[in-house]
Amino acid sequence: MLLLTASAGGSDAARFFLVLAGMLVAAKLAGELCERAGQPAVMGELIAGVLLGAGGLGLIPTASGDPLTPVVRLFAEVGVVVLLFEIGLETDLKAMARVGPAATAVAVVGVALPFALGAAYWASGLHGVEPSKAGRLITAVFVGATLTATSVGITARVLSDLRILHSLEARLILGAAVIDDVIGLVILGVVSGLAAGAAPSVAGAARVLAVAVGFLAAAVWLGLRVTPGLFALVDRMRVRGVLVVAAFAFLLVLCALAERAGSALIIGAFAAGLVLSETNQFDAIEERIKPVADIFTPIFFLSVGAAVDLRVFDPRLPANRATLVIGGVLLLIALVGKLASGWAVPWRRFNRLAVGVGMAPRGEVGLVFAQIGLAAGVLSGRLYSAILFVVVATTLVTPPLLRGAFGRGATVEDELP
Amino acid sequence: MLLLTASAGGSDAARFFLVLAGMLVAAKLAGELCERAGQPAVMGELIAGVLLGAGGLGLIPTASGDPLTPVVRLFAEVGVVVLLFEIGLETDLKAMARVGPAATAVAVVGVALPFALGAAYWASGLHGVEPSKAGRLITAVFVGATLTATSVGITARVLSDLRILHSLEARLILGAAVIDDVIGLVILGVVSGLAAGAAPSVAGAARVLAVAVGFLAAAVWLGLRVTPGLFALVDRMRVRGVLVVAAFAFLLVLCALAERAGSALIIGAFAAGLVLSETNQFDAIEERIKPVADIFTPIFFLSVGAAVDLRVFDPRLPANRATLVIGGVLLLIALVGKLASGWAVPWRRFNRLAVGVGMAPRGEVGLVFAQIGLAAGVLSGRLYSAILFVVVATTLVTPPLLRGAFGRGATVEDELP
Repeated sequence: MLLLTASAGGSDAARFFLVLAGMLVAAKLAGELCERAGQPAVMGELIAGVLLGAGGLGLIPTASGDPLTPVVRLFAEVGVVVLLFEIGLETDLKAMARVGPAATAVAVVGVALPFALGAAYWASGLHGVEPSKAGRLITAVFVGATLTATSVGITARVLSDLRILHSLEARLILGAAVIDDVIGLVILGVVSGLAAGAAPSVAGAARVLAVAVGFLAAAVWLGLRVTPGLFALVDRMRVRGVLVVAAFAFLLVLCALAERAGSALIIGAFAAGLVLSETNQFDAIEERIKPVADIFTPIFFLSVGAAVDLRVFDPRLPANRATLVIGGVLLLIALVGKLASGWAVPWRRFNRLAVGVGMAPRGEVGLVFAQIGLAAGVLSGRLYSAILFVVVATTLVTPPLLRGAFGRGATVEDELP
Repeated sequence: MLLLTASAGGSDAARFFLVLAGMLVAAKLAGELCERAGQPAVMGELIAGVLLGAGGLGLIPTASGDPLTPVVRLFAEVGVVVLLFEIGLETDLKAMARVGPAATAVAVVGVALPFALGAAYWASGLHGVEPSKAGRLITAVFVGATLTATSVGITARVLSDLRILHSLEARLILGAAVIDDVIGLVILGVVSGLAAGAAPSVAGAARVLAVAVGFLAAAVWLGLRVTPGLFALVDRMRVRGVLVVAAFAFLLVLCALAERAGSALIIGAFAAGLVLSETNQFDAIEERIKPVADIFTPIFFLSVGAAVDLRVFDPRLPANRATLVIGGVLLLIALVGKLASGWAVPWRRFNRLAVGVGMAPRGEVGLVFAQIGLAAGVLSGRLYSAILFVVVATTLVTPPLLRGAFGRGATVEDELP
């Protein structure tokens, strides 16, 4: 009311409400269809996003001039951090620490292998593309870098959909994905420097690594000490909804701090969940954050789908065919490189394939690399489109592949309290 | 991730997260302080909004150039419709229908009296202001019109804070506020025509009235028939969160439809709540929409507060003093006119004062009138500021006054199932 629903603002709100309602209804219907077809619900949400997005019905605002685009984008951001917060809440910190060294091995192999294969493919010249003015080697480093970073959102949601978040494999994947994000930040620092013409600096890379690892460690360490007192105070407050608001605000602050510290929003979200999973109010927080996640999280997955315009990959256009061939090779490298990471752990019995598949989806970090390379003239438009193809393909194939891989079973560790 | 947390977008998100967290924490702390001081929590949220708003610390984005302003505004819009939805859910449709004629009497007196007194005050010339070029009579009609419409959000929240939503008085206030909104739309149509120089038309006013009443009746009638089947279907779906998403999407669609039908968003929200309160899933919906309301609703009340810049009313500036005198007289008229509405009902025993106070807060409709009058040159800048003063003052004094008025007790009707 007061100043808020004045004439113009009002119809903006009405359109926003219809967009939100359309996205949510489509998400649940498509999710239901996928689940009945034996697939994870998130796959339906991604496909619904593609159908409602810029390349489809255009319901989801993606144009930069549309006043609703930033609103939906920020709703989606809240969606992905609430998702990672929930995943963190359900993650047992001690069990996670136990798989720490193994997860590090998975992350390192899953970064090193796609990087080496991608860079080698480009340096070899097998693709038949003329070197850019920046030189073949720099371009090769960029191509390799874009293939390294796992996007944990998709996998986390599939693990949640399949109700196997407590399996050994899920812990390995989530732990490796977080470490992978930290490595990704280091690589981002190095390639940004390369794009700007700087020589790669070990000191600079070490600083980025120290900040990212330091933030995560400090957040969890400090959080574990501060939150019990904080939430004991919250328990003594009388106003309505104070617990869910406190947990939500804690999540938001940790995300923002993570980003300000040079890390990623979702690292802060995961850390916030890990920390609050150790408080006495854990059950109540989990129960009350669930409806909030139910509203926000589908907006994220639909937005991911909406950003995809399948027409760029239409093979009827000759220009697209060359892009698809290069994209296909890079996709193969991207998949093989991450699949192999499941074999990085020397343990005898667990589902290596599922771990490898779980690490497969690529996302924002790869695209950030690619955008920097495109802007600096290191990557051509065609190469950028090929990398976009890899991101889209790994995102869309992971849910059914991961479901299939877990068909061979998940390893149940002893459940800790 | 994917396309969403690219560098620039990322830090936008971090700032948005900090703003949201700051607003939520301030809301709960201020709400807690007010509740401990025996006042409704919403009063704390309003004051926190004033302190964090444009006239205070400036944490809440209100500038039109700030990219976060529309985002926070739409969050606030979701907040107020979720609030009215919750109020609708807790309202017993049959009990509401029983108080229908009485609520209509309250609404009619509460509109007619402030209008007549306000118009008479202005037409009399007692205020000492020279007539505008539009003529004193037209200005007088505008002044009267701005004082008519009750803003139900504040009162609804106070009734909820005081846990007396099921009292006879609460039903009277809510029913009268909805009817009052419908009358407000009719007056809006007439004064917009006057501002544009048209002669007032009975046919036009009747059409607006028919659309608004027709929408509400059709939404509730159709809703009661369609939703049981719809939500039986929802019950058979397997995906996570489908119930809360279905209820939320139903709310959003009804709000948007209400606005498209020429009514107000919040009328649709209240209708959605009324309709779903009759479904079998009522309890589950109420429980799961609660955390969603806990996150969104405070953003609305803080935004209401943030729009207030108290410096406009600083009496040390001579120009402000004349405004304050006119504002004071209009405030008196606004309060007396609505207070009297409690005596419009011939029943012997109920808390008339509480009903009158509950109808007192003014809000968006009055400001929309005032903005139209200002743009058309019918109202001077000083008169506009005086009306703003009335809106702010009625908003801020209602929570403690209403709490005081209910100190004499609320009337408990037989609770219906």
